[in-house]
Amino acid sequence: MDAVRIISDYIRFPSVSTDPAFAEGMAGARGFAAKLLASAGLAVEVVETPLHPIVLGRRTGPGSWPHVVLYGHYDVQPADPLNLWTTPAFEPSVRAGRLYGRGAADNKGPHATAILGLARLLRRRPELPLRLTVLLEGEEEIGSPSFNDFLEKYRGELAGADFVLLSDTGSPSSEQIVVTTGLRGIIGLELRLTGPQMDLHSGLHGGAVYNPIQALAEICASLHSADGRVNIPGFYDGIAPLEQWERDELARFPLTESAYRKFLGVDALYSQAGCTPIEATRFAPTLEFNGIGGGYQGEGGKTVIPSTAFAKITCRLVPGQDAQDIVRKVSAAIEARVPPGVLSSILVRQGNNAYHVCPPRRTGTPPKQNPVLAQAFGLASEAITRNFGRPPLFLREGGSVPIIGDIKAVTGLDSLMIGLFMPDSNLHAPDENIELAVIERGMDTYEDFLEKLAAAGR
Amino acid sequence: MDAVRIISDYIRFPSVSTDPAFAEGMAGARGFAAKLLASAGLAVEVVETPLHPIVLGRRTGPGSWPHVVLYGHYDVQPADPLNLWTTPAFEPSVRAGRLYGRGAADNKGPHATAILGLARLLRRRPELPLRLTVLLEGEEEIGSPSFNDFLEKYRGELAGADFVLLSDTGSPSSEQIVVTTGLRGIIGLELRLTGPQMDLHSGLHGGAVYNPIQALAEICASLHSADGRVNIPGFYDGIAPLEQWERDELARFPLTESAYRKFLGVDALYSQAGCTPIEATRFAPTLEFNGIGGGYQGEGGKTVIPSTAFAKITCRLVPGQDAQDIVRKVSAAIEARVPPGVLSSILVRQGNNAYHVCPPRRTGTPPKQNPVLAQAFGLASEAITRNFGRPPLFLREGGSVPIIGDIKAVTGLDSLMIGLFMPDSNLHAPDENIELAVIERGMDTYEDFLEKLAAAGR
Repeated sequence: MDAVRIISDYIRFPSVSTDPAFAEGMAGARGFAAKLLASAGLAVEVVETPLHPIVLGRRTGPGSWPHVVLYGHYDVQPADPLNLWTTPAFEPSVRAGRLYGRGAADNKGPHATAILGLARLLRRRPELPLRLTVLLEGEEEIGSPSFNDFLEKYRGELAGADFVLLSDTGSPSSEQIVVTTGLRGIIGLELRLTGPQMDLHSGLHGGAVYNPIQALAEICASLHSADGRVNIPGFYDGIAPLEQWERDELARFPLTESAYRKFLGVDALYSQAGCTPIEATRFAPTLEFNGIGGGYQGEGGKTVIPSTAFAKITCRLVPGQDAQDIVRKVSAAIEARVPPGVLSSILVRQGNNAYHVCPPRRTGTPPKQNPVLAQAFGLASEAITRNFGRPPLFLREGGSVPIIGDIKAVTGLDSLMIGLFMPDSNLHAPDENIELAVIERGMDTYEDFLEKLAAAGR
Repeated sequence: MDAVRIISDYIRFPSVSTDPAFAEGMAGARGFAAKLLASAGLAVEVVETPLHPIVLGRRTGPGSWPHVVLYGHYDVQPADPLNLWTTPAFEPSVRAGRLYGRGAADNKGPHATAILGLARLLRRRPELPLRLTVLLEGEEEIGSPSFNDFLEKYRGELAGADFVLLSDTGSPSSEQIVVTTGLRGIIGLELRLTGPQMDLHSGLHGGAVYNPIQALAEICASLHSADGRVNIPGFYDGIAPLEQWERDELARFPLTESAYRKFLGVDALYSQAGCTPIEATRFAPTLEFNGIGGGYQGEGGKTVIPSTAFAKITCRLVPGQDAQDIVRKVSAAIEARVPPGVLSSILVRQGNNAYHVCPPRRTGTPPKQNPVLAQAFGLASEAITRNFGRPPLFLREGGSVPIIGDIKAVTGLDSLMIGLFMPDSNLHAPDENIELAVIERGMDTYEDFLEKLAAAGR
């Protein structure tokens, strides 16, 4: 399939946004994305930002045409641990009906699928009455620090569009697509503790100094209660209650706890008061440790009391929580728990609220929606049903696409999110992949949906 | 000074025993040590072991001559973090009256000082009535795994000696030498926790799995009580009470808590029930975290729930604790605290009991001593007083020289330990160093002491 070759070429650029060593890979992926948009017939502009530029593609037309903003990100997560990949992360390969490589699922594969479906539609229907603005950013994996300024600058153009369309969310399998109606927000911070001013011999000084690893363990351990919930004053304040249609929809979701345990390779799921583990991944806020380090890391032992230790922490947020408020509460709780003899510093890395849209024809309180968006949920549902063989589920998801909330806040636009990665796509992990069938049906769905949307008009 | 040049040449061999990459440095240091002993007039043998060979030097004579076993170790700690050294760890340099380099203080500098003093004595008194066995091992920094088998094999020869003499302990300054009367024992273990079978996206799966870093933090945090003591059932069982002469001797030790805080660069010392921080470093058992790791370690963030996390733990033991018993108790306590959904594995790395000898003319209950050892404490005290200008203190020390207890157990020999490193010698840390004055006075002291010891006879 030609699309697989194109997506493979895209993956080959190692566009790791968090690490300055990958500047060349970022530039390569950006150039590739620009060519992809141009070959679909869009006018392309590369918008400079303080860090990684944004690739912007446009198809203009009369104000009576629907106007869709298509979003994707060309940056990827780091590929480490490199030794756990079956084939190298940036040398894509096809095995057993899947394309493997860093970015195959998050997010090069899905947004390229959308653009390739769009390109086919526009080749067939060059006069299609549809306006498009395609935004491909390069900082999604590091919290999109430049995106808000971009939104402010392009607010006039974007605010006139009807909705945002994207595939940066998941579905349980290629047999059951999910349209994502909400995303968790995220905050990230790095806690660094300093004890003695230099590494110390643990025999000569052990007993007289507060080991910063001990202090770090005690602080980190204090951040959850015995009931499994986050133990930070006010953390759960203001959270919106789960709506009944959401529980009903999740009940139709084809995943049992037993199958989930097997997939994860654990003998028990995490238990927290107030929800099941599967509910927790979509509807509960979390506090997770993404990394911890300090002292001797090599082979064997080294009898040292280290000078410093660190933990990388992120919280996933749900509707009702304010990112900046949670940053303050987490930071204050940590600082209050630093023992004497140890100094702390906290670096705040990310902050984005959760996002929630209520599709029409659901119970609950639907938000104000423009007519094109309201119609789009129905048309997307029909196109998914035709091309994937089953109606989609409408569900909130646990991941974060931080810019979705920012777009809403700055431009007023809601988002329609079609999930094109699966639980075994290995996002952020070795052997990331996308099914070839998803690429094919995804292209068909995007082509079908956008054609019907244009036909329905504004 | 010729001795400084010789010790510098010795330091230049990077003999890091814990890391197989340094095999060449180990061989180089071993060859250098053998030549050093030969040049002092000793017969040299290199004894193979399963890992790093032992260098053995001998001076034989009639059974009426005192027989001293001189001990040292030619292996060193890893030099990392390399970037914190003012000059490279294995390129020794002299600055402001000190010789800098990995091994300068632990232990190449001190045992070379002893051998150089001995060499000068034997050049001056070639007929000196003194028998010597010099043991230089290469596995001290990794717990001396081969040393017990060596002791068993050479038990007959060693058991006939009078005592062991060594300088692998510390003194508060070159103005106040300490004769060390005890050492803490040590056990080492590495705890590895495994949660999900692969690294997971913290958005998609956060809330459903027990993050192994969280489990590790909770387990590590549980290992100390709020009163600062080790929170493991039975950990303090059987510990011998501190004797009054030891408290009195420590009261003469020239270190205030304020000066110690300043030296460590902390605003408060660690506080634990039952002793002061300075007492704790010598007389209390500890549990320390030497390293912790898991998840993303690089720059920036990565929103991952890691599959595994680890902690490197050592306990320092005091007289009355049994190393194997403590290994069992610590392991059992950890295993009992592993939560559901997480698997643990514990690698046991070291195990040695504490060691304690009571010098003559002290209150308390002196152990059975042979007459040469009893005499040696007095003669060493006099030689130290003459050459360093002040009588030594007799004190237990917090560090571990694991083989001292093994030697006692296998051969019955007690040890006389003259402290030649200082608090600012930076053991196991960057910018390790030894004072040039200590090398000079140390050589004088060894020469003086051994001459008097030989004169006193058996």
